[in-house]
Amino acid sequence: MPDSSNRLAQQMAFIIEADKLKNIFRQSYISDASRRENDAEHSWHLALMAITLYEHANTPELDLLKILRMVTIHDIVEIDAGDTYIYDEVHKQDQEEREQRAADRLFGMLPDDQALSFRAIWDEFEEGETPEARFAKAIDRLHPMLLNYLAEGKTWKKHDVAASQVRAINCKIDKGSHDLWTFAQDLIEKAVAEGLLRDA
Amino acid sequence: MPDSSNRLAQQMAFIIEADKLKNIFRQSYISDASRRENDAEHSWHLALMAITLYEHANTPELDLLKILRMVTIHDIVEIDAGDTYIYDEVHKQDQEEREQRAADRLFGMLPDDQALSFRAIWDEFEEGETPEARFAKAIDRLHPMLLNYLAEGKTWKKHDVAASQVRAINCKIDKGSHDLWTFAQDLIEKAVAEGLLRDA
Repeated sequence: MPDSSNRLAQQMAFIIEADKLKNIFRQSYISDASRRENDAEHSWHLALMAITLYEHANTPELDLLKILRMVTIHDIVEIDAGDTYIYDEVHKQDQEEREQRAADRLFGMLPDDQALSFRAIWDEFEEGETPEARFAKAIDRLHPMLLNYLAEGKTWKKHDVAASQVRAINCKIDKGSHDLWTFAQDLIEKAVAEGLLRDA
Repeated sequence: MPDSSNRLAQQMAFIIEADKLKNIFRQSYISDASRRENDAEHSWHLALMAITLYEHANTPELDLLKILRMVTIHDIVEIDAGDTYIYDEVHKQDQEEREQRAADRLFGMLPDDQALSFRAIWDEFEEGETPEARFAKAIDRLHPMLLNYLAEGKTWKKHDVAASQVRAINCKIDKGSHDLWTFAQDLIEKAVAEGLLRDA
């Protein structure tokens, strides 16, 4: 058993390493379209969405603390594995293997008990089967759609994404929240009507 | 009572407005010193610190969910009020008034029940008297010290800050966590020894 100062040193090393998440840039732009969003900002915005919107989850009485743990750590693996664009079928092929290796290294920096508990939370998120994971994944999908709409479809246009693809990828929002999937479908329709997203 | 779609519309308007936090830049640089940190990233990093470090709080059995709510929303007022540097005695004079006005407007965008509960959480953080607020404030103070140390004292040097000022401002960390204040004092000593922080 390490002494408490060793334990704190391991925790601080993890917290310092995690700072690199601020340099992992996503495909989405922030809402004013001035620059791409990084994973740290995205994770914060999901936490804000979680505390504001969890009443819209399909399952009542969700464990909000677990959802907040999930969204806070869900992208940390991208420090090693990089961000994989959700419409990129090539890089999605080895995404799981890259992210599992990253999870081993990054969560492995923590004291053993925390390494296990952080990894369990991340695994639960990735599997997406519990009510908390379904809701966390629902807001993780809705968030870039919302930013893309606000940034006048910049990323959709750049990658020539069509409304049918957006619907096919994001219909899983419905597993976490019917309300948010209804909102997302309205957003897709508005984006098509306003010429921000290709209709096909 | 607004219907549920109106309620969701208010919540979404708040979430969209909060995106502006990604454009509020702090005095601290991220750890590689490449650029200044924004409030959204900072808030995420505090959430990560909270879930990793809350065992070091002076009070056992803290309400971690409350701490995560606090750190997620604690800087949202800076969308209107701007970031006030902790060593800036001039701008600190009207900081409270600016931030209270900002809290009225921003949390007031939410449905009434949430406007009240978000405001109550933010007020509790600002007052800094409950165990959860003391711990949240402890990590909010420790975080820029840690980044400054990693960025080779860039902000301390720029503003000619001395070790005595860093100690005087940050000794309140001790109210939330003796362990973290011990860690912070060691960090100040190392920063002085390495010439990153002026000793006086």
